[in-house]
Amino acid sequence: MKIAILPGDGIGPEIVAQAVRVLEKLKAEGLPLQLDTAPLGGAAYDQYGDPYPEVTQKLAREADAILLGAVGGPQYDGLPRDMRPERGLLRIRKDLGLFANLRPAILYPELAGASTLKPEVVSGLDIMIVRELTGDIYFGQPRGIHVNEAGEREGFNTMRYSESEIRRIAKVAFDIAQKRQGKVCSVDKANVLECTEFWKEIVTDVAKDYPAVQLSHMYVDNAAMQLVRAPKQFDVIVTGNIFGDILSDEASMLTGSIGMLPSASLDANNKGLYEPCHGSAPDIAGKNLANPLATILSAAMMLRYTFNREDAAQRIETAVKTVLQKGYRTADIYESGCEKVSCSGMGDAVVAAL
Amino acid sequence: MKIAILPGDGIGPEIVAQAVRVLEKLKAEGLPLQLDTAPLGGAAYDQYGDPYPEVTQKLAREADAILLGAVGGPQYDGLPRDMRPERGLLRIRKDLGLFANLRPAILYPELAGASTLKPEVVSGLDIMIVRELTGDIYFGQPRGIHVNEAGEREGFNTMRYSESEIRRIAKVAFDIAQKRQGKVCSVDKANVLECTEFWKEIVTDVAKDYPAVQLSHMYVDNAAMQLVRAPKQFDVIVTGNIFGDILSDEASMLTGSIGMLPSASLDANNKGLYEPCHGSAPDIAGKNLANPLATILSAAMMLRYTFNREDAAQRIETAVKTVLQKGYRTADIYESGCEKVSCSGMGDAVVAAL
Ligand SMILES: CC(C)[C@H](C(=O)O)[C@@H](O)C(=O)O
Ligand SMILES: CC(C)[C@H](C(=O)O)[C@@H](O)C(=O)O
Repeated sequence: MKIAILPGDGIGPEIVAQAVRVLEKLKAEGLPLQLDTAPLGGAAYDQYGDPYPEVTQKLAREADAILLGAVGGPQYDGLPRDMRPERGLLRIRKDLGLFANLRPAILYPELAGASTLKPEVVSGLDIMIVRELTGDIYFGQPRGIHVNEAGEREGFNTMRYSESEIRRIAKVAFDIAQKRQGKVCSVDKANVLECTEFWKEIVTDVAKDYPAVQLSHMYVDNAAMQLVRAPKQFDVIVTGNIFGDILSDEASMLTGSIGMLPSASLDANNKGLYEPCHGSAPDIAGKNLANPLATILSAAMMLRYTFNREDAAQRIETAVKTVLQKGYRTADIYESGCEKVSCSGMGDAVVAAL
Repeated sequence: MKIAILPGDGIGPEIVAQAVRVLEKLKAEGLPLQLDTAPLGGAAYDQYGDPYPEVTQKLAREADAILLGAVGGPQYDGLPRDMRPERGLLRIRKDLGLFANLRPAILYPELAGASTLKPEVVSGLDIMIVRELTGDIYFGQPRGIHVNEAGEREGFNTMRYSESEIRRIAKVAFDIAQKRQGKVCSVDKANVLECTEFWKEIVTDVAKDYPAVQLSHMYVDNAAMQLVRAPKQFDVIVTGNIFGDILSDEASMLTGSIGMLPSASLDANNKGLYEPCHGSAPDIAGKNLANPLATILSAAMMLRYTFNREDAAQRIETAVKTVLQKGYRTADIYESGCEKVSCSGMGDAVVAAL
């Protein structure tokens, strides 16, 4: 089980360090893990002048799975587009064909108070957003900023989805729904965009192979509303890269504790990159304040999806639940009556609970 | 003051009828209004085989302002793309150059309970979303569904913004912010999309002419989160057509009473189309159950923005506040202890309060 560890920028190194402690503990107990570290994003630019340098490419390609902290920081804002930390992230996704981004939005009962939504609206929330990650307007050509035929400057991008791209992400969504409540909601803007009209057609076709799964369709504007109005109506949501970017962040925030949410980005063979949903939080970086649980839970997803070790995955998830029940909280999820702990303090608690 | 009345489909005719009663009342008191009616959307297709037929084009072009109910219904789902009700709406926007879509998200104190968000998060909410309405991926060429170079079917659309398109919508946003709290948040995805990187550059440039307005920038995924996390941080949000479609619907739903929210779509000379933010609600059409207040408030926006009659606009808005304070509620905003009224009953109450 070869795992590439990419700490990244900001709080990345500190949260990843805690997840590594959890993995090391499982390794000490016999899980055959091999962990190797390389830089990505701003850290990689600083060291190699490239946000996804060759040393990282090599390690990532050879690994079975990748654990990433987060990338980005204000000190990189002035860099040319190609050198910015985000480009490292987009390039590794594309390079490794990580087309299936799984982003669960789960409300932990212990943290229900953290949500800005009323408890009855979000209690028990458990949505899985399946976002296509290597196509769409993120990668579509042509793109750029140029002078158009009318002699005016303009910016332009191309939204694009081929049948095979849609088919494979739809299959992922239906497969996952079969192991959950059996409902898939495909989100599009088919009333305006031909690209998503085509998306809807292909998803509908794939659904024929999954008679036990119930497929519905929703326009993206309505989905953004329904997530606020009645989020528990959703089981699995499948959508394209840009709509998925927006809706998955909205859905995460419904829980009020984005510091708890992991994600997986998988290729066709379940090789995956695992990372927390939250960002690099430069404002608290290096202060041992960050919440490492999303990263620790990302390691659990890795054991589940890439290594098929449901047992080990659940052990980590149970340990996380235990520390929450015991009242340990990092600053982002702290409530009075609980015990405030640092990033490494939370790591201690999880390792102990394991 | 020539006003084209386009009742549209579903609940459109019933809600527009109540707004027309309000306008007729002002006319009887001396406001020089001329009201003429024509079909749009499905109703126009049924009558003329075209969702935006010539008779409607002529009336809309000659009018100073347009009051629209809503378009769409399941009976039109099977029609070819060009015949669908939404196409009528997109065509009238483009035909009349209605590039500035203003969508307020306001929480009425009397209806605070309707929100799914906690009262402290949304009380006093007052956001103005300024959405560009005639450009972006909605209208960008090329577009379609074809067989690509690899021999595979694919769908594609083009996101596109020229400098002049961005400049004029940015000006609208800054002008509005000057009359409000003086804050504009421009929403983009400049870290990924060149089109919106260009958007950000031009908005930043326009801001130089508005030293009293404070401009910030936010990625669209973060904006979708922040609307849930802390919506009161926003004053004016300006963004492109597709991001505006998604975020304005999300923002409306924060109030919990989308049946209360009007909108304006303006051209360069303040000619405008005014319509409720909600849709045609086919399920309750013809039952005299719909909430006409968003349409009545759209008529108030018309008097303010197109006819410069702040006095008359405020009179209508005050009348709406009065009926809410008196406890009148249509079914969508009903709470126990209030008096449930029909669509026309709500119209009666507003006319009486005027
Ligand atoms: C950093 C950015 C390029 C990235 C994206 O838009 O995909 C992020 O928002 C995410 O969702 O992982
Ligand atoms: C009906 C549809 C074409 C329209 C849009 O996407 O603009 C609607 O959602 C809106 O926001 O007015």
